[in-house]
Amino acid sequence: MVTPDQMPEFVAWAKRRGVIWPSSEIYGGLSNSYDYGPVGVEMKNRLKAHWWRTMVHAREDIVGLDSPIILNPQVWEAAGHTENFTDPLVEDLVTHKRYRADHLDDPTVSPDGNPVSEPKNFNLMFKTFIGPVEEEAATAFLRPETCQGIFINFKQVLETSRQKIPFGIAQIGKSFRNEITPGNFTYRTREFEQMEMEFFVREEEANKWFDYWVEARLQWYVDLGVKKENLRLFKHPKADLAHYSKGTTDIEYRYPWGWGELEGIANRGDFDLTQHQKFSGKDMSVFDDETKEKFIPWVIEPAAGLDRALLVLLLDAWQFDEKGRKGEGEAETTLMVNAAVAAYDCAVLPLMKKEPLQKMAHDLVAKLRAEGKSVFYDETGSIGRRYRRNDEIGTPRCYTVDFQSLEDGTVTERDRDSMQQRRVTI
Amino acid sequence: MVTPDQMPEFVAWAKRRGVIWPSSEIYGGLSNSYDYGPVGVEMKNRLKAHWWRTMVHAREDIVGLDSPIILNPQVWEAAGHTENFTDPLVEDLVTHKRYRADHLDDPTVSPDGNPVSEPKNFNLMFKTFIGPVEEEAATAFLRPETCQGIFINFKQVLETSRQKIPFGIAQIGKSFRNEITPGNFTYRTREFEQMEMEFFVREEEANKWFDYWVEARLQWYVDLGVKKENLRLFKHPKADLAHYSKGTTDIEYRYPWGWGELEGIANRGDFDLTQHQKFSGKDMSVFDDETKEKFIPWVIEPAAGLDRALLVLLLDAWQFDEKGRKGEGEAETTLMVNAAVAAYDCAVLPLMKKEPLQKMAHDLVAKLRAEGKSVFYDETGSIGRRYRRNDEIGTPRCYTVDFQSLEDGTVTERDRDSMQQRRVTI
Repeated sequence: MVTPDQMPEFVAWAKRRGVIWPSSEIYGGLSNSYDYGPVGVEMKNRLKAHWWRTMVHAREDIVGLDSPIILNPQVWEAAGHTENFTDPLVEDLVTHKRYRADHLDDPTVSPDGNPVSEPKNFNLMFKTFIGPVEEEAATAFLRPETCQGIFINFKQVLETSRQKIPFGIAQIGKSFRNEITPGNFTYRTREFEQMEMEFFVREEEANKWFDYWVEARLQWYVDLGVKKENLRLFKHPKADLAHYSKGTTDIEYRYPWGWGELEGIANRGDFDLTQHQKFSGKDMSVFDDETKEKFIPWVIEPAAGLDRALLVLLLDAWQFDEKGRKGEGEAETTLMVNAAVAAYDCAVLPLMKKEPLQKMAHDLVAKLRAEGKSVFYDETGSIGRRYRRNDEIGTPRCYTVDFQSLEDGTVTERDRDSMQQRRVTI
Repeated sequence: MVTPDQMPEFVAWAKRRGVIWPSSEIYGGLSNSYDYGPVGVEMKNRLKAHWWRTMVHAREDIVGLDSPIILNPQVWEAAGHTENFTDPLVEDLVTHKRYRADHLDDPTVSPDGNPVSEPKNFNLMFKTFIGPVEEEAATAFLRPETCQGIFINFKQVLETSRQKIPFGIAQIGKSFRNEITPGNFTYRTREFEQMEMEFFVREEEANKWFDYWVEARLQWYVDLGVKKENLRLFKHPKADLAHYSKGTTDIEYRYPWGWGELEGIANRGDFDLTQHQKFSGKDMSVFDDETKEKFIPWVIEPAAGLDRALLVLLLDAWQFDEKGRKGEGEAETTLMVNAAVAAYDCAVLPLMKKEPLQKMAHDLVAKLRAEGKSVFYDETGSIGRRYRRNDEIGTPRCYTVDFQSLEDGTVTERDRDSMQQRRVTI
């Protein structure tokens, strides 16, 4: 786990090991924007697949959807974002730096101690223009949340999937929020990826399903190895709820900079479907076979951030040993991350950069890949160095092909967590 | 395969079966923008994973990357997009409809027979604004291609991945082009997903690698079951090459509306790295261990469109039998798609909606899912109807749990392509 004073070392590690680094760096970067390197993109894909597998494939009551980033602008009118998706913006009257008024310790004074302007509501949606001319009619927005693409498709999915209430629609995709003050590494970025699921229920069952999803989503992180003592639930006070919410509980994580949101579970009531019915004139209700009446379902929404979830997994699994893991050498970093989201299932290492060790190692790589495993082949440097390199990116197991392998077909299996080695048959 | 006159039926099927339908439909849609439904999103994810597996995981000379959609605007200055990424726009002087001049049969007359304006160069990049104020300094663009995120990260990836020339960097992600005339279902949309790989080579090996990738990428589609007679190569004439290209060959597909691009393989020379070196002032060269000299690598780029590749797989695999597949009944649609990209590996069907058939079917679902299979459970309607439904979305195999299953543990395996059934042990 990363302590507050270890953040610089963590950020340096993320860059050095090809996990995450500042984007557009050769041009001086771009305001808190990040790239996922060769190791990071594998972990991100793994986490995405894990969410999809557990939330969609493992269940019979949830189906997937993929809707565009740019939707008809009326969607945001109906959803209330054109009017309500704003942050209070203030400007330091001396430095002209801008801040979110609600993030200041004293809302009348900037962090530099200068007076600030009156707060103005600033809309967080990124604006763009469709078609050849920048005219008002062609103004569109980058979605600030993926869920609206689900709501407007609710009836279409219901009709083609033969699901019945209660059921859910899941989506993974990029969202964009023109944050006034992004920050804390990948915790808050303007461009980010969401994993949202909208679960449609009867009003009278909304509370039951809300509790179910809070519990299920908390357990999801625990199952992924996040330490329980670093997780807690935070129930939003009624007065602070978003315009669409009847109740929201956040799963919070103990970041190096303090407790903060990891995932929010919201009871959105019938707000969104009712609004879209009103603005589109299309019927959003479903027919109840039992009561023979039509009703608009309520929605329970577990909304996770992919970048944030990956950040938490990295922060929580990151281990730094000043004198090495055995307490007798140089500083060592180990990523004790759950195997389900490690960049590679295993590494295959020929003891030396020589034939026929290399050929045998490549054969083993091919065999493991045919079994669906993601394999990292590494032949440069001493074996000890290569074990360290794989510990640093969290590879759960290394298989070393040595001279004994040529004779009896066994290899050395080396375990990341225990550092123990044993001979196994290929 | 979809014939020209079958396009309306194909589009209706795509909507009815939850594959693809027009986006934002309750608000009247949004100019050639589409959603992937529950079946479509599974196929899209499968295709994406297949590309990544074959292009990254199965090779030791290609690594992945994930860079943002919004990059530092200087990237587009350097890459030449601010100046050159334009289409010639003309306007019908009577109807005021807009067209791409180079898409008109007669560039001075609109399809409606009216005279058109002089062509103007229209930049295809979507513009947006970062931060609270719409000022020139904060103008940014949605990337029109994913490859620039790779070029600006070239040195960073090289340093952290310990790859050596020749090697490649792969990326999958959304790109945006403000097309004047999008169209032909998902063939040309303003928002689309790319699968690009930039392969860095020595100048003297550029032609060899170009030929290698043209061949490899063509074979990739053949391996996915696309009929050879529907694929061909088209070499761009020198005069028509994009500003960055030293040579481009398209893999073309015979769409219902005629031959058109499926994937382009370009020899980008050292254009991009040289430009970024010039604009950023950062060294983009690599050191040659043999000649002891520094050089800027050339780039071979196979650039595939995910939406377009999926469209081709659907069009090519779609089969419509007016009198049913046995020639003796109602019209039937079958998706004869490769198992690697089918939405589901298999379906599990209890013969009747009754216990203990349902329980045994659910147990089989759980067993297959534990093996990593993607499984569709379906219990509604007659068995014949359920086979048809699964044929329509291309499920390669159905397993039916019947009364004999309860006795001897066997199930009926029914094959999509041959329609043959046989008893197999679970």
